Amino acid sequence: MQQFMNTRETLVTEAVDGLIRASGGRLARLDGYPHIRVVVRADWDGGKVALVSGGGSGHEPSHAGLVGQGMLTAAVCGDVFASPSVDAVLAGILAVTGPAGCLLIVKNYTGDRLNFGLAAERARALGRKVAMVIVDDDVALPDLPQARGVAGTLFVHKIAGAMAEAGADLEAITAAAEAVIRGAVSIGMSLDTCTVPGSPKEDRIGRGRAELGLGIHGEAGVEQVDFTGARLAMGMVAERLLPHVAEADQVALLNNLGSTTPLEMSVLAEELARSPLGARVKWIIGPAALMTSLDMHGFSVSLLPATPERIAALAAPVAPAVWPGLAAFGAVAVRPLPDGLAPVLPAPSAHAARRALVGQCCRVLIAAEADLNALDAKSGDGDTGSTLAGAARSLAAALDRLPLADEAQLLRAIGMELSQTMGGSSGVLLAIFFAAAGDAAAGGAPWAKALEAGLDRIMQVGGARPGDRTMIDALAPALAALPGGLVPAAATARAGADGTAAMVRARAGRASYLSAGQLAGHNDPGAEGVARLFEDLARNGAAQTA
Amino acid sequence: MQQFMNTRETLVTEAVDGLIRASGGRLARLDGYPHIRVVVRADWDGGKVALVSGGGSGHEPSHAGLVGQGMLTAAVCGDVFASPSVDAVLAGILAVTGPAGCLLIVKNYTGDRLNFGLAAERARALGRKVAMVIVDDDVALPDLPQARGVAGTLFVHKIAGAMAEAGADLEAITAAAEAVIRGAVSIGMSLDTCTVPGSPKEDRIGRGRAELGLGIHGEAGVEQVDFTGARLAMGMVAERLLPHVAEADQVALLNNLGSTTPLEMSVLAEELARSPLGARVKWIIGPAALMTSLDMHGFSVSLLPATPERIAALAAPVAPAVWPGLAAFGAVAVRPLPDGLAPVLPAPSAHAARRALVGQCCRVLIAAEADLNALDAKSGDGDTGSTLAGAARSLAAALDRLPLADEAQLLRAIGMELSQTMGGSSGVLLAIFFAAAGDAAAGGAPWAKALEAGLDRIMQVGGARPGDRTMIDALAPALAALPGGLVPAAATARAGADGTAAMVRARAGRASYLSAGQLAGHNDPGAEGVARLFEDLARNGAAQTA
Repeated sequence: MQQFMNTRETLVTEAVDGLIRASGGRLARLDGYPHIRVVVRADWDGGKVALVSGGGSGHEPSHAGLVGQGMLTAAVCGDVFASPSVDAVLAGILAVTGPAGCLLIVKNYTGDRLNFGLAAERARALGRKVAMVIVDDDVALPDLPQARGVAGTLFVHKIAGAMAEAGADLEAITAAAEAVIRGAVSIGMSLDTCTVPGSPKEDRIGRGRAELGLGIHGEAGVEQVDFTGARLAMGMVAERLLPHVAEADQVALLNNLGSTTPLEMSVLAEELARSPLGARVKWIIGPAALMTSLDMHGFSVSLLPATPERIAALAAPVAPAVWPGLAAFGAVAVRPLPDGLAPVLPAPSAHAARRALVGQCCRVLIAAEADLNALDAKSGDGDTGSTLAGAARSLAAALDRLPLADEAQLLRAIGMELSQTMGGSSGVLLAIFFAAAGDAAAGGAPWAKALEAGLDRIMQVGGARPGDRTMIDALAPALAALPGGLVPAAATARAGADGTAAMVRARAGRASYLSAGQLAGHNDPGAEGVARLFEDLARNGAAQTA
Repeated sequence: MQQFMNTRETLVTEAVDGLIRASGGRLARLDGYPHIRVVVRADWDGGKVALVSGGGSGHEPSHAGLVGQGMLTAAVCGDVFASPSVDAVLAGILAVTGPAGCLLIVKNYTGDRLNFGLAAERARALGRKVAMVIVDDDVALPDLPQARGVAGTLFVHKIAGAMAEAGADLEAITAAAEAVIRGAVSIGMSLDTCTVPGSPKEDRIGRGRAELGLGIHGEAGVEQVDFTGARLAMGMVAERLLPHVAEADQVALLNNLGSTTPLEMSVLAEELARSPLGARVKWIIGPAALMTSLDMHGFSVSLLPATPERIAALAAPVAPAVWPGLAAFGAVAVRPLPDGLAPVLPAPSAHAARRALVGQCCRVLIAAEADLNALDAKSGDGDTGSTLAGAARSLAAALDRLPLADEAQLLRAIGMELSQTMGGSSGVLLAIFFAAAGDAAAGGAPWAKALEAGLDRIMQVGGARPGDRTMIDALAPALAALPGGLVPAAATARAGADGTAAMVRARAGRASYLSAGQLAGHNDPGAEGVARLFEDLARNGAAQTA
C-alpha cells in the first residue's frame, strides 16, 4: 500500500468521518454505512432549496468538502471513481429536501446520470420536488455529444448555492444553473497519471510529454503533446478554450488536479495572465484544488462569462473553508524598494592607535592561515584559515576608508566590510557580531561591554553556546576577563581554545554532523584563531593604546 | 522538465507574480527582481507591529501565501530550499516597519537565522525596532539541540498575526510568540521524497516503507519504518509526540506536505482522533497544505497547548484564503436514515387484461433472447437479449405481486421490479422510464402520454436522442403513433429499428466507442426488441384489451 489509508473498503467511510470530525460541528452524515455515505449540513433546517451533488470519490474537496452554508446541502459519496448507488442518492435527497425542493447537480457521466436520475424519480414518487441539471463543461472532445463534467461544476455549486442561500425558488435556481452550464467551458492538462488506491500506477505519459484534454478519472487525454514548460502548456490550454469564449469578460477557475505544487500553480496563474486569454479573464477563483483526480500532476482552466449576478453569487461568503473565494485578476502591483538598502558609508577618519590595533589583528590572522587550515582539515574542509586570512587582508586594505575616529561607526563599518568580503556563515556571524557591538557602543557601552553585546547576539542568531566547540569557547571567557586586562583575557582565551580539543560533540555548525572520534584531540580552528588574536594583543600591548 | 515552470531561474519570480495577480489587489511586491522577492500587504499603512517571515521557497503557501490582514505583513522568498539574501530580508523589513516595530519569524535553519539575523542588525542600525524569534518545533531529532522549524511556525504566524492586528505592542507579541515556540511540537512522515525542480528525484524510500521524522527540504527522515497503513502511521506519529505533550487540551495542525490527497488527509484526521493523542486534541487546523515540501507525499502533525487567548487568536478571521480556520475536533455526528428508502410495496390487485398484456410482453422478450444477443454481439458483449429476457422472466414471475388494478401504481411497480432485477444502465433507464410514466399516469395522463413522459425523462437522464442508435429510435416514433392504434405504432417502430442499421455512429451508450464499420448493416438490439414488442402486440391485439 502506498497511500495513507487502511483498506480500500473503508477508505471513503473513514475519510468522510475524518472530514466531519474536523468540520467543527458544521457537518454530519447519515447512518447508512458502509454503503450509504452521505454528508449533510448539520445546521440545515430544510427551509430553502436544497442542493445535492456527489459522484465517485477521488475528486475532493468535491463534493463532500463543499457541503455548507452557501454551497451544497448534501453530498453523496461513491467509491473512488464509482457512482454512488440509487439508494444512497435517494437517502441524500430525502434527508435534506423540504417544501422548497431540491436541485441535483450531476456531472455528465453515465453512472451518475442514471443513479441520480432514478433516485430523483423515486423521490418524486414520494412527493418531493426534485430538479436535476447535468454539467458538461469539458471541451476536450469536440465531436463527442456527451461532454464530461469537470471543474466547471464548481461554478454551478457556488452560484446555485448563493441563490439558494438568498431564498431563490427551485425554478429560478435551476434556470440559472442551466445557463451557467451552457456558458461554462473547461480543459485540463497533466504531466502524469493518477494513482488509484490499490491499483498499480499506469506509466502512460513519458518524460517531456503531457496529456491535454483529460478527464478526472485517470482516463487518457485526448492527445499527448510535447511539454516544454508552463508557458507553452498554458498556451495550448488557451488555444483550446478560445473558440468557445465570447468577447465578454470571463471568470476563470484555475484548478489543481491533485499534486501540482502551489509554486507551479502560481506560475500557471501568471501564464494565464500572459496567455491570449489573459485580457479576457477579469476574475479568478484559485489557484486551488477544487475538483481533483486523486494525486494527478495537472491542472485545469474553466471559464464562465461574467455577469453582475454571477459575480455577486461567486463572491458571496460560504462556510466551506476550502472555497478560495473570487478575486479580481489583474496586474502585478509593484512598490519601489525602500531607502536604506544601499549602505551609507561613514566618512573615513583617522585614529592612529585604532588603526594600529586593527592592523595588528589582521596580521595575526594572516599569519595563522596555514595552522588554522590544518586544524580545520581535521573536522571540515580545511579553509577556516584562508577564510579568516582573506577577510583580514581585505580589511587591512580598507583601513584608509574606515571611520577610525568614531568607535561605534568603526565597529559597524568592520561588520559591513566583513559581510562583503567573507563568504559563508562565519562572515555573516562576524558581521552580526560587529554590527551589534557597534549598536551597543553607539548606546554608550564601553569597549568590552560592546563586544559582549555582539557575542550575545551571535549566540542568539547562530544558536551556539559555550561548550559547543566553536570560537565562542575562546571568545566568551576572553570578553568576560577583558575588563581585567589583556593578559587574563588571553589566558582564558587560550584555556577555552584548548578545551575544545576535549569536546567530543559539536552542537552547532558544520562539525555537528561529525562523530566524536573525528573531533577529539585537536582545537576548534575558530577558537584557536581567537586565542591567537588575544595572545598577540597581550604580548604586544596594542589594546591599551586603542 | 517535469514541472509546470519555465526555468529554474524564473520559477520564484513568476510564482510570486502569479500569486499577486490572483490576490485581488490584496498583495504587492517590491521592485527588486530578480534577487529581491518580497511580497507585502498592499493595504498596509505601517500603523501596527509588522510581521515578517520567509525563507527558502518550496513550502507554499508558507510564507508568501500567508501575507494578509491578520497574518504576515511581508514574506521574503528565497530560491527553492535556499535562504533569501540579507539584502532581500532587509528590504522586507524596511518596507513594512513603522514606529510600532517588526517581529521576524524565522524557522531554525542556519541560513535563515544568519541572513534574517544580519538583516535585523542592519535595520536596527537604521533606527528600526526589530525583534526576532526562531521556531524549532520539530521533535524528530531528540538529541539535536538545534531542532528544525517546520509546520508549527503556522501557530506563530497566526497568533502573532491576531495580536498585531488587535494592536498589541512588539514586546507582548514577541513574548507570546516565544511562549508558542516553547509549547509547539511537530513531527512528519512521508511515503516518498519530494521532486526538486530541475533535479532528478531521489528514490530513497522503498515500497512498503515510510520515513518518520523528516524535514521539509527533502533531507532524509530520522528513521525508515515499515508502512502498513494510515492507522499505524498515525500511531507512530502520536507515540513520538506524546512524551512532549502535557495533559492539557491541545490544538492540532494537520499539515499536508504536498501531494497527499484530500481523501488520505481526511483518513489521517480520523486516525488522529482514534490515536492515543485523540482524547487530548480538542481543536484542529486543517487538514490543509500549510507548510509543504514541494510535492512530498507526506503529512505532519503539530500540537500546541490550548489556552483561551491562543484559541481566540487562532480563530480570528484573516485575509489569506488558504488559512483553513480553527475548528473544534470532535465526534462524528450521525443522523438517522430518512424514511422512504425502503420501498412501500403497493398491495397486489387483479386486472385480467393488464395481466395478459404484461405477460405477453414478457413472452415476446423471452422469445427474442437469442436473436437480440446475436445482434448485440456485433457491437457489444452479446448480452442484450439475455438481459431483457432475464428481466422479463422475473417480471412474469412477479405478476401475482403487482397492483394490476391501478395503472399508475402498476407502472411504478414495474419500474421498481426492473431496477431490482436488471443489471447495468439499461435496467436503471427502464426503471426511470416506468417510474416517470407512473408519475404522469398518477397525474391523469392517458396511457400513451404517460409513456411519452417516461421517454422524455430517459432522454434527459440518459442523454440519448432519436438518431443515436438506441432503443429510442424505435420507441419514440411508436409512442408518437400510438394514439392512432397499435398497427401504425408497430409499423413506425419497425421502420425506426431498421433505420438504426444505417446509423454509422452511435452517439450514446457503449456503442458510441465503436467505429462506423463495426456498426453498419445491423439493427440496434434495443430498438429491435422494441419493434418486436409492438409488432407482437399489434398482431395479437392485446393492447386494445388493456
